Amino acid sequence: MESNIILALDVEDVTKALRIAEEVSEFVKAFKVGYPLILGSGVKIIKDVSKFGEVIVDIKIADIPDVSKNVARILSSQGADGVIVQGFVGRDVVREVRKEAKHLYVVAEMSHPGNADYISESSERIALMAKEEGADGIVAPATHPKRIRALKQISGLKVLSPGVGTQGGSYREAMESGADYLIIGRSIFMSPDPKHKIEEILSQG
Amino acid sequence: MESNIILALDVEDVTKALRIAEEVSEFVKAFKVGYPLILGSGVKIIKDVSKFGEVIVDIKIADIPDVSKNVARILSSQGADGVIVQGFVGRDVVREVRKEAKHLYVVAEMSHPGNADYISESSERIALMAKEEGADGIVAPATHPKRIRALKQISGLKVLSPGVGTQGGSYREAMESGADYLIIGRSIFMSPDPKHKIEEILSQG
Repeated sequence: MESNIILALDVEDVTKALRIAEEVSEFVKAFKVGYPLILGSGVKIIKDVSKFGEVIVDIKIADIPDVSKNVARILSSQGADGVIVQGFVGRDVVREVRKEAKHLYVVAEMSHPGNADYISESSERIALMAKEEGADGIVAPATHPKRIRALKQISGLKVLSPGVGTQGGSYREAMESGADYLIIGRSIFMSPDPKHKIEEILSQG
Repeated sequence: MESNIILALDVEDVTKALRIAEEVSEFVKAFKVGYPLILGSGVKIIKDVSKFGEVIVDIKIADIPDVSKNVARILSSQGADGVIVQGFVGRDVVREVRKEAKHLYVVAEMSHPGNADYISESSERIALMAKEEGADGIVAPATHPKRIRALKQISGLKVLSPGVGTQGGSYREAMESGADYLIIGRSIFMSPDPKHKIEEILSQG
């Protein structure tokens, strides 16, 4: 089955995370590994999850260029197929991370209400910058489907879109607005039957 | 000796990091543990470094409120005395992290050139928001000492200031501009004699 779902494995329990990853490996495009797993296990978890599919590491890198580049290098050396960086920290950071990332995704806008405080003022400029710096995609929220379309148009890049499910975004609306991949976490991994839940989501498309 | 230096232990090699921490423990206010150590070792490194002093964890949390709060909880449970969050992700993120952090420091402005791309437009609003949300301090760069004074005035909070040394900021200028603590990394831990280097920096004050 062709799936455009990126499963956010935001599960602290490594055993549970790997069990879910194995169970749904054929039903997802990639796994997103974030803070909960990395903090508990260190970066070696990347290799473990890689056994079941591509891994995009999402610790929303948001440090100075030198540190951010080192982080990307460490993640890539463990087998990360992609890394996510916060565009907000600036062009020089994105440029340095680009050098060490196999695939680079830049957060242009986020799915939570606080996104409107500061980020949304800059998100169009960030999307354009991401394109200019050779990113492979941007991250833009399914909770604001109109923004997916706008930011995709500006950047011409693939859009990875979080926010479907628990946060209130709709799979169908996000897809219709031009999202290429949907990042979904809680509504899948907290389901008693993650595989069935994925099928259910995909059938809405 | 009363020291206002926070040593950024951005060293990947755990053994080296702990050796330096032990060596300089009486000469620093606290240790800042960031990505390089956390990625390699997971959060258990916080307890190890805590043996030699207070630990402020700096992975510049920049995720949605729910994830950011969980990250802060995990870090605090390992003994983090303080955590650093990116203010630009918004008030709701800062509010959630506040609930789980012993001491909370909010990045209002950064030390690298890319700070001027998007963050600097928002930094004064971020500094004020940090105060309103009960942060213990803000992070503002020694590379722009005038900004330290401005952001300190707006927030009325302690200022932790990175950028002295390798990045070009001056200890004396940062102090004169109102910085309370100087976050210094490379110029100390890359020195053949970290303890002596600290004394040298402090004697400039």
